[in-house]
Amino acid sequence: MAVNTIEELFIHELSDIHSAERQLTKALPRLAKAAHSDKLASAFETHLGETEGQIERIDQVVELLGIKLKRIKCAAMEGLVEEGKDVIEDIEKGPLRDAALIGGAQKVEHYEIAAYGTLAALAKQLGYKDALPLILETLKEEKATDEKLTVLAESGGNQKAAAAA
Amino acid sequence: MAVNTIEELFIHELSDIHSAERQLTKALPRLAKAAHSDKLASAFETHLGETEGQIERIDQVVELLGIKLKRIKCAAMEGLVEEGKDVIEDIEKGPLRDAALIGGAQKVEHYEIAAYGTLAALAKQLGYKDALPLILETLKEEKATDEKLTVLAESGGNQKAAAAA
Repeated sequence: MAVNTIEELFIHELSDIHSAERQLTKALPRLAKAAHSDKLASAFETHLGETEGQIERIDQVVELLGIKLKRIKCAAMEGLVEEGKDVIEDIEKGPLRDAALIGGAQKVEHYEIAAYGTLAALAKQLGYKDALPLILETLKEEKATDEKLTVLAESGGNQKAAAAA
Repeated sequence: MAVNTIEELFIHELSDIHSAERQLTKALPRLAKAAHSDKLASAFETHLGETEGQIERIDQVVELLGIKLKRIKCAAMEGLVEEGKDVIEDIEKGPLRDAALIGGAQKVEHYEIAAYGTLAALAKQLGYKDALPLILETLKEEKATDEKLTVLAESGGNQKAAAAA
């Protein structure tokens, strides 16, 4: 890890979420294709566009601060992406698979909410006034995506899963 | 995975978070010992007691519904616990380590918030009226713990880390 200062901790966390977002851009098209309901497929597609924008914001932060990201592979996102693959393999396309995909996607969103929350706290302490709004914008988007998934879980998805079960 | 009905999905998710909570009870004493600030050490100790109570609530849900948990090891929590160990190995005891430990703990809390949120949505759909309040009580506790950690991150912890850096 080699973290000796709070700046280095910020760089470490930023590198980790950069890896997580990049892994997610590869997983989201697969998730959209695997979704049964059009609403869920479209939520995944929308979030792919957002995720690409979030990676651009990370690149902007890197440029603003003149830092260099580390080569890290975010193990937590690796595990979460793997779980998504298991869901697709093990559950037929239908409302039940959608319920499981939504649950997995909310774990992903919450991982990111925690990560950007930490980055925001560190950026505040470090006085990164130009970088902070970029981080907060992404944080807001991740929270909105999580709320959208909650609505999908509580309305369409799971009711149909219950009816099908 | 072998999930064919929404009841089985509920059992799968409950088994996963049961494994996660059990792993956490083993990690929290180590985190409390590794924390520099008394406030953070005490937050970890308080959360150990809460986590034990949350496992009891899972056991109550199991009994109420007459279900049987599956033997699953939650891979995401395994990764998060591993990251905590890395922090302790790689960063000396002090405010910087505390900042890193808080970041890791918030990822743990958010994993649990997502997991209990999914369980609550599934329990609603399944009409598990007696189990639902138990799940919601734990969800509330996890959110409160996350907020407490945010306060620690934004006040004491990181300011001292910045000063020390």
